[in-house]
Amino acid sequence: MQRNQSSSFYLGVDGGGSKCKAVVVNHDLEILGSAVAGPANPCVDYQLAIHSITESCSQALAEAGLSQQQHQIELGLALAGVNFENVFQRVNEWSHPYHSMRLITDWHAACLGAHEGKDGAVVIVGTGSCGYVCVDGHSKSFGGHGFPVGDKGSGAWLGLQAVKAALLAKDEMGPATLLMDKLCESLSCKPEELAIRMVGASSAHYAQLAKTVFAANKDGDEQAARILREATDYIEAMLASILKYQPPRLSFVGGITPFLVPLLNSELRERISRPLANPEMGAVYALLKNNR
Amino acid sequence: MQRNQSSSFYLGVDGGGSKCKAVVVNHDLEILGSAVAGPANPCVDYQLAIHSITESCSQALAEAGLSQQQHQIELGLALAGVNFENVFQRVNEWSHPYHSMRLITDWHAACLGAHEGKDGAVVIVGTGSCGYVCVDGHSKSFGGHGFPVGDKGSGAWLGLQAVKAALLAKDEMGPATLLMDKLCESLSCKPEELAIRMVGASSAHYAQLAKTVFAANKDGDEQAARILREATDYIEAMLASILKYQPPRLSFVGGITPFLVPLLNSELRERISRPLANPEMGAVYALLKNNR
Repeated sequence: MQRNQSSSFYLGVDGGGSKCKAVVVNHDLEILGSAVAGPANPCVDYQLAIHSITESCSQALAEAGLSQQQHQIELGLALAGVNFENVFQRVNEWSHPYHSMRLITDWHAACLGAHEGKDGAVVIVGTGSCGYVCVDGHSKSFGGHGFPVGDKGSGAWLGLQAVKAALLAKDEMGPATLLMDKLCESLSCKPEELAIRMVGASSAHYAQLAKTVFAANKDGDEQAARILREATDYIEAMLASILKYQPPRLSFVGGITPFLVPLLNSELRERISRPLANPEMGAVYALLKNNR
Repeated sequence: MQRNQSSSFYLGVDGGGSKCKAVVVNHDLEILGSAVAGPANPCVDYQLAIHSITESCSQALAEAGLSQQQHQIELGLALAGVNFENVFQRVNEWSHPYHSMRLITDWHAACLGAHEGKDGAVVIVGTGSCGYVCVDGHSKSFGGHGFPVGDKGSGAWLGLQAVKAALLAKDEMGPATLLMDKLCESLSCKPEELAIRMVGASSAHYAQLAKTVFAANKDGDEQAARILREATDYIEAMLASILKYQPPRLSFVGGITPFLVPLLNSELRERISRPLANPEMGAVYALLKNNR
């Protein structure tokens, strides 16, 4: 069957632990609408994820003046957590209202976006951390196992290390640090309230504390410097593994990027290029790769 | 008002993240009944904690042939999490059905139990970790901030370190280790399933994996040895802080004790005496200290 390409529209979605972004484009990749909705990590809350995806898509389509009833909408859905096979299967069986759906990991979408659908690699350092390389049809991920077992160097990891160091210093069982003051300021709490404030905290909550580590490091705090050294050691080791695959381009994405990249060694820094497009556009590129 | 002591019965309760133990004794501290119920950490689930406390007390009283309607029952309640002021206040305002209630931390109860109500110190290494010293009416705690921000050296901490080391090795970004095999055996899963199996896992769940570290260490695994060295360094530092208070006795309590104590330096090991009674009896001693 010959597809009438001009009547197709592409919906690109990138969902993760804190938000879900959607973009609608036509066949010429002109952006017709976009929207942001709530958390969409199916490992954390499947129903909420589906709700956020639906909401972001509906809003983006409304902005574009399109509806899934009247137009042929193809959904490129990039989600955190679908690297796990059982999570992938569950989301992939979702009876979505669109013409078709392609489900990929958020890492894959970030990589496709950063290099406009071409080969390359990304290091994602946001709430979580992960490396992803895609060369000659082969792809491989590094890290990205989730918090707290993985995600070293990420915002959540940095926040957790800050709290740990502050509590050790408070108990006089670890070196003195400025981190307690920074954390208490950030959380508007007293030192004795810090631990209870963090009971059951989500990775997104920990990630909000990452800025205390960069601030304390700027003020010459040795514990903050130690934490950032451990983070950059890990990210540099990840980069060494990634570069063995000789990706033609390498980008960093995620909220921690502007703070962490300047701390990497200069030889590695020179290899980094800016992302050409965002992950939700990456999800659209995944559709085009399928179709063309 | 003169109390008629012979008609009083004492209910001692020790509640934590995995279970709640109750004991009923008479004025001569003869055990009349005992029971175990489910989790009772009010930080994790307040309603469940109250339910588990009530259940364990009812069962212990039934075994003793007593009822709170017909007998004067004094409750000594030791709970995890009540070191946090707001949690203490909430539990302390519970409209319990007993004649009176005294609420203390589980650490305090462990210390009172271990030394039969007399001065001393304890190091608790179970699901969590904490030090507690009580000398001349003054008490002080060390660590015990909860998982994952504190509780270094605990079962939960050991389990988490094992998973982290196994995943780093799997990604070829950390040294090889036997821990992945041990963890997969313990969880009946494949290496690629390890991370997803641990998403959102409780501290009790992580603590069940602590045994993999001791097993791998026995088999000469360097990563397991590194993890245990970090644990013993922390516990030894905690002991150094505790011993400054010159407690007349020092005991270790908690499920990790038999595995961890043999790894401590011999000078410290010689200072350790066995606990004379359990924490629920410690909660009874807290009542007696109040009354006598």
